Amino acid sequence: MPLLTRITGPRDLDRLNLEQLDQLAEEIRTFLVDAVSKTGGHLGPNLGVVELTIALHRVFESPKDKVLWDTGHQSYVHKLLTGRQDFSRLKMKGGLSGYPSQAESEHDIIENSHASTVLGWADGLAKANQVLKKDDHVVAVIGDGALTGGMAWEALNNIADARDRPLVIVVNDNERSYAPTIGGLANHLATLRTTDGYERFLARGKDLLERTPVVGRPLYETLHGAKKGLKDFIAPQGMFEDLGLKYVGPIDGHDIEALESALARAKRFGGPVIVHCLTEKGRGYQPALQDEADRFHAVGKIHPDTGLPIASSGADWTSVFGEEMVKLGKEREDIVAITAAMLQPVGLDKFAKTYPDRVYDVGIAEQHGAVSAAGLATGGLHPVFAVYATFLNRAFDQVLMDVALHKCGVTFVLDRAGITGTDGASHNGMWDMSILQVVPGLRLAAPRDADQVRAQLREAVDVDDAPTVVRFSKGAVGPAVPAVGRIGGMDVLRAPGTDAPDVLLVSVGALAPMCLEIADLLDKQGISTTVVDPRWVKPVDEAMAPLAEQHRVVVTVEDNSRVGGVGSAIAQALRDAGVDIPLRDFGIPPRFLDHASRKEVLTEIGLTAPDIARQVTGLVAKLDGPTERPTAGIDAAEPARD
Amino acid sequence: MPLLTRITGPRDLDRLNLEQLDQLAEEIRTFLVDAVSKTGGHLGPNLGVVELTIALHRVFESPKDKVLWDTGHQSYVHKLLTGRQDFSRLKMKGGLSGYPSQAESEHDIIENSHASTVLGWADGLAKANQVLKKDDHVVAVIGDGALTGGMAWEALNNIADARDRPLVIVVNDNERSYAPTIGGLANHLATLRTTDGYERFLARGKDLLERTPVVGRPLYETLHGAKKGLKDFIAPQGMFEDLGLKYVGPIDGHDIEALESALARAKRFGGPVIVHCLTEKGRGYQPALQDEADRFHAVGKIHPDTGLPIASSGADWTSVFGEEMVKLGKEREDIVAITAAMLQPVGLDKFAKTYPDRVYDVGIAEQHGAVSAAGLATGGLHPVFAVYATFLNRAFDQVLMDVALHKCGVTFVLDRAGITGTDGASHNGMWDMSILQVVPGLRLAAPRDADQVRAQLREAVDVDDAPTVVRFSKGAVGPAVPAVGRIGGMDVLRAPGTDAPDVLLVSVGALAPMCLEIADLLDKQGISTTVVDPRWVKPVDEAMAPLAEQHRVVVTVEDNSRVGGVGSAIAQALRDAGVDIPLRDFGIPPRFLDHASRKEVLTEIGLTAPDIARQVTGLVAKLDGPTERPTAGIDAAEPARD
Repeated sequence: MPLLTRITGPRDLDRLNLEQLDQLAEEIRTFLVDAVSKTGGHLGPNLGVVELTIALHRVFESPKDKVLWDTGHQSYVHKLLTGRQDFSRLKMKGGLSGYPSQAESEHDIIENSHASTVLGWADGLAKANQVLKKDDHVVAVIGDGALTGGMAWEALNNIADARDRPLVIVVNDNERSYAPTIGGLANHLATLRTTDGYERFLARGKDLLERTPVVGRPLYETLHGAKKGLKDFIAPQGMFEDLGLKYVGPIDGHDIEALESALARAKRFGGPVIVHCLTEKGRGYQPALQDEADRFHAVGKIHPDTGLPIASSGADWTSVFGEEMVKLGKEREDIVAITAAMLQPVGLDKFAKTYPDRVYDVGIAEQHGAVSAAGLATGGLHPVFAVYATFLNRAFDQVLMDVALHKCGVTFVLDRAGITGTDGASHNGMWDMSILQVVPGLRLAAPRDADQVRAQLREAVDVDDAPTVVRFSKGAVGPAVPAVGRIGGMDVLRAPGTDAPDVLLVSVGALAPMCLEIADLLDKQGISTTVVDPRWVKPVDEAMAPLAEQHRVVVTVEDNSRVGGVGSAIAQALRDAGVDIPLRDFGIPPRFLDHASRKEVLTEIGLTAPDIARQVTGLVAKLDGPTERPTAGIDAAEPARD
Repeated sequence: MPLLTRITGPRDLDRLNLEQLDQLAEEIRTFLVDAVSKTGGHLGPNLGVVELTIALHRVFESPKDKVLWDTGHQSYVHKLLTGRQDFSRLKMKGGLSGYPSQAESEHDIIENSHASTVLGWADGLAKANQVLKKDDHVVAVIGDGALTGGMAWEALNNIADARDRPLVIVVNDNERSYAPTIGGLANHLATLRTTDGYERFLARGKDLLERTPVVGRPLYETLHGAKKGLKDFIAPQGMFEDLGLKYVGPIDGHDIEALESALARAKRFGGPVIVHCLTEKGRGYQPALQDEADRFHAVGKIHPDTGLPIASSGADWTSVFGEEMVKLGKEREDIVAITAAMLQPVGLDKFAKTYPDRVYDVGIAEQHGAVSAAGLATGGLHPVFAVYATFLNRAFDQVLMDVALHKCGVTFVLDRAGITGTDGASHNGMWDMSILQVVPGLRLAAPRDADQVRAQLREAVDVDDAPTVVRFSKGAVGPAVPAVGRIGGMDVLRAPGTDAPDVLLVSVGALAPMCLEIADLLDKQGISTTVVDPRWVKPVDEAMAPLAEQHRVVVTVEDNSRVGGVGSAIAQALRDAGVDIPLRDFGIPPRFLDHASRKEVLTEIGLTAPDIARQVTGLVAKLDGPTERPTAGIDAAEPARD
């Protein structure tokens, strides 16, 4: 890497000639394949923006100018060019984030990693520049897929409104987000792509008109007299210019010289302008290019030559859901599926293959996923909208005001719920069980194992007059956790072995094995513990308060924000029932979590069996009065006091 | 009303000729002005859609065909034509809802009253028709203002994707939502409006080409050979057809014959089609037409002849905020304001008049309001985004992932928080203090009176590294409620008058007078009560747990959903501090509330001083042991036990 290793910041690019820049691009691709195959990460998107990122940093002066990345998983090249070339611990604790990170670099702004936000950020930054009379530039890079999100539209509408407020929008058009982009916009972009380029069309049109002296002049004038003028017809830039945005393109997104020329023109323009760049996701890496599904959007550890995964992933929550959906689809013709541009990641690919007319990819458009589900349900179907837990936040208002208010039978399946870890703060699905608590009528299931995923999904789709939610974790699903009994609708996972048990331990979802471990640890301290899995955590089971009353302490454990979560809901249910015994709720603390493995995060926040057992032991000891029980030594598994 | 009173359902329209239809339209306008001037309601929007609604119900067969209204405040005419002509208790308890209501009529579908959702509903219903092989029609009416919302874009993108799925979109273009519509889209619609109409353009173009035999043919072919064909150039329908949507228009929205013709063509088309209708908000009512601000969008009781309000409204929360913003704007040049198409209703009109370059109307686009605020803050300004509490739900993900994650100093001012009453389920601002609890770093103020609005707004805009929220009620602001002391950051509103008080009563926001009344009632029962107003309800004040510990019971009262609200947060803070005394949290039950006055709703849900005092008395009696205190008789103000 003779060139790459000498790049310590964007200005080092200024010294390179075009040939060297092409060489640098090659070096970066080699680096990316080597590095990401070792750690896993977003490979395809970064291979697609190598030249674009180089050109951006040649033309704009980051960090004075703000270079903004939508979603941010395509920022690896940007990292390499802004002084961050140690990818050995990418997405690992202490290593580089998989997204831009203000803590890493002054060149990074947006960390959110939720799609379609960049134009809103850019609009705000451009407005601030205008108010503060700064001549800094703002350039936003957004994929064609992310343009399907409503936020992008809201922003375009605002950006176009001020023709004197400079802002450069780079549309990174690779015809796909995760999967191929869908919808009317995608078709329109295809039209733009198949155009021969604005300048050539314009030249041809003028030429033709000039060769037709008799009627050419009046025709030209007629054409020109129309509101939008000749060029709109000849080069179908279409909707962007309709909105009032200057359009430049399409540009070959792998031609650094062409990119620099277009970006420089856009930078000089003095108003909002779109630069439409055509790129190839996975560019230069055969295994990615041959992967039609998602072009190696995000990979685990792979063999760099073949692209084949190094470790087999085994049964995971997603595929358990996906396979059950295929069965349900066969049994019930009214079941349809919805995805927001993530057919494969949410496990709906098999359903789509089997029932292609009953699956809807709505684009990166969670709001539309939810509201159209209300329409589908009102129209007589039962939609299942499978979505990452963190992305459901986008559709909170629609879940509440469209699905729940209208008592629609819609099932939301929340994948990647709880701590996901390596993708950092914005990918943890740690808010869903809190914000969904407020939705009247909504029923929320947190299955603890594969059997429960299947069973609770079936229970969910049987509800036709209220929203239902089934939320589960990321990755491998653990072994079955059998019930030893049932109280109300709750599974008893462990009986206390005494008539006067100390602790009622409420286990939520995938934390069941941990809760059983906590109970064992408490047992060694002479603390008798009942473990229940409520299965449906909203509404709180009616049997909960009477059961709690038989214990001295209630402890809840959930893989969700502590604030307003299942623990809070149970605490309120107990208060309402007049059961005023102490309760302690364990969950995720109310702060954003840095990227690290799920296990590392759980340890860091104290969501481990020894940590929880120690605290519960302390609480019980306090109830017993001073000095009666030891509160330490659980880690060392000391013999219990008696 | 010789014609109107004979209309009992849409099919009664079939018997009328054009002249009679025009007469009916006049009768409806007279009815609307008479009726709404007596009750208050959405007048301007309904005066604008009289002919359109008549034509829709002539061409489509509701309820077999689904006629859908975006937002729904323009559905009064629809109500009149579908058997609902008693407007005497409009928006009052037991009377007609101000929005469509499934409980009222089989002709009503969407009740949500949040803008920009109708196209998503329509897409879902059309998809269901396709799967179930029904040939029913779906027609969605959306204003040009609502098209600025991202959901509309997401839906258009999906609708355009299936050219064989019938769906009629009526754009009710009156150049305004509440206020004049802004943005690139508005400019584009203006372009469409100024066009001479598609058919005439097409005719003129063909004619011209046919008169030019020498070069006309090849030119025609050249033009025709281009991807989009001749007609796109001649009639600049622009972006809708770019997306793949057939466009019909512009149509005079007050010409019933023209409307019927266009709608009938659209109905026959067999795919998604936009019918662009030009209407005049406030049509036929001079006082409305002369009101440039919002054309009598929504009015209180007015004199029907003059349009002047009958009761003066007095000082309200909104204007207290609005006036303080003007002062802040003078003191701090970095303060900018944001509204989502509601400049006047949220009280920013004076700020806008004084500082026109520092206010941004983003359209009906709460997501963009929040995310662009993050950009503005990052760019060095302090944005204040004033929005109805219920509409902030749309921007939850942006508050969390853009503003809070990036530690941006953005102030959200939530107007119409708590129970608003007459607008029904979807306008109550009863979720904000629950969902915002989960946002790390966010600080939330609930001012109790006008002085506190001013003070807390100032405290909020002084925070530059986290989101702040100031939420207040709808309508008249009550008298000042003075503090008698301070503990931590909390105002003491009433000292208990004893060293061993019974109850700590936590009063949130505008409920302070009610809480003082509760304390008086408890006092009469011999229950000594401290009343505190935490002022900032998130985070829970550090002084709360030590203070609570000095009492036997904690009671919280808030004008927000009980679920996950301030009471839950305080309960959790007490648990975390090991303060295990009983707590009872009073607030809004977790269900949707029918329209009625605020007072009627509060009474119905038991959020009144006597109700709460009675329950608290019962709790204290239970703690005292059996028979010690009476639990009844508070209403009759019986003497206390001692």
